[in-house]
Amino acid sequence: LNLILLEPEEVGPEGSVQLRGLRAVHLQNVLKVTPGQPVRVGLLDGSLGTGIVTAVGVDAVGLSCVFGENPPPRPAVDLLLAVPRPKVMRRMWAQLAALGVGRVVLTNAERVERPYFDTHMLHPDCYRPLLVEGLQQARDTLLPRVTIHRRFRVLVEDELDELCGSGIRLVADPGAKSQVESVVRRHTGGDHPRVLLAVGPEGGWNEFELRLLASRGFESVSMGPRTLRTDTACIALVALAHEALKGFRPAAAREG
Amino acid sequence: LNLILLEPEEVGPEGSVQLRGLRAVHLQNVLKVTPGQPVRVGLLDGSLGTGIVTAVGVDAVGLSCVFGENPPPRPAVDLLLAVPRPKVMRRMWAQLAALGVGRVVLTNAERVERPYFDTHMLHPDCYRPLLVEGLQQARDTLLPRVTIHRRFRVLVEDELDELCGSGIRLVADPGAKSQVESVVRRHTGGDHPRVLLAVGPEGGWNEFELRLLASRGFESVSMGPRTLRTDTACIALVALAHEALKGFRPAAAREG
Repeated sequence: LNLILLEPEEVGPEGSVQLRGLRAVHLQNVLKVTPGQPVRVGLLDGSLGTGIVTAVGVDAVGLSCVFGENPPPRPAVDLLLAVPRPKVMRRMWAQLAALGVGRVVLTNAERVERPYFDTHMLHPDCYRPLLVEGLQQARDTLLPRVTIHRRFRVLVEDELDELCGSGIRLVADPGAKSQVESVVRRHTGGDHPRVLLAVGPEGGWNEFELRLLASRGFESVSMGPRTLRTDTACIALVALAHEALKGFRPAAAREG
Repeated sequence: LNLILLEPEEVGPEGSVQLRGLRAVHLQNVLKVTPGQPVRVGLLDGSLGTGIVTAVGVDAVGLSCVFGENPPPRPAVDLLLAVPRPKVMRRMWAQLAALGVGRVVLTNAERVERPYFDTHMLHPDCYRPLLVEGLQQARDTLLPRVTIHRRFRVLVEDELDELCGSGIRLVADPGAKSQVESVVRRHTGGDHPRVLLAVGPEGGWNEFELRLLASRGFESVSMGPRTLRTDTACIALVALAHEALKGFRPAAAREG
């Protein structure tokens, strides 16, 4: 753990925290903390800070925490993802939170199998701890917002603008010719551009879905002819989008 | 499976193949093949082709195969990786083979824990099937070459040039300022440039290791301040290297 994340209700008056369970075990067995030692702490969806170890017990570690540092800015990449197999979805949560996504919009699509929607992997009790794990890895406190949508058309036509705003929209399509970077660099609007990245089911989006995405501003991108597992593709594409945005300078700066 | 990969010794005279086990089960239960149907096949480290289903039995599927199409060119990215935790290494094999790596050079480093070397995850019996799984996903036949090196200094000073040639060398270093793409684009030599990407242990390379890598031409790159798990970082960096190479035009083309 590069950061101990705390729920706001875990923090008592004057910043006192009593950790039990996995985080206490980690502090004792991996970081081998002793009283007086500082550890990095953060409030979920809140600020970063420092916790001084006050006590090390059999199964508990006491901390005295001071918060106040800003967490990293909300990641500028959002993911629109057709619900994948539960096993694949499970692998992705922590990695997406670590790489940094502002929002994960899970959607139905023709080639999404129905039982995928009923899995516990789509329940916050299951994915939230995995998101926290990823945030602790990356030293961030901002949980990606997760929403689940059973009607693709309603989502894309009526809800997506409000959810994700008017950023650069990309859809992964094996047949496309453009690279992520070239499409992102072509855009010039806004000082803080965001990328919304759409990744389809394993069998791909169908024709209707691709046309609907295109009609709502999604431009096709590809990483080449190799077919990747959904989790590999998402990790790679989110990283490519982040890198492309770093190379992005607002129109004003380029003209100046 | 997007491709059924075959060991050369599985192919009988006139291209006949008798599949049992997982591949036969997959053909029957997932692809639901019937006699006369074509499926994509490939010879490990050889050519691609087509297999016509000749028989579907209780636990076996017969194919009649014709080979002759070239597989994709050997991937132009190699990975020099400090041996990670076995669980992390296990997650990576198939994904690396799918994304495409020409070579995986596994090395010791100060912060690699000793037991990591004794794991069965470094044994071909364990990683080869995972590499095959990744190739079948990506429709490739060329197994990444894997070598394991216990002496980092000997590897870097004496063996690496022969193993990986004189391509563009990058080392992932959280403190670096440069992006993968900007370093790759700066290079101009050769018509078919390769990238050799070095990724350190979870605690990072030590000072000596970083200096030695720098002295052998490795340039530092970073994806930003977020600390990533080794597998996430490798997937992301290999994808970035591939994308950067696609944007790479040989010096002659740029001048012309």
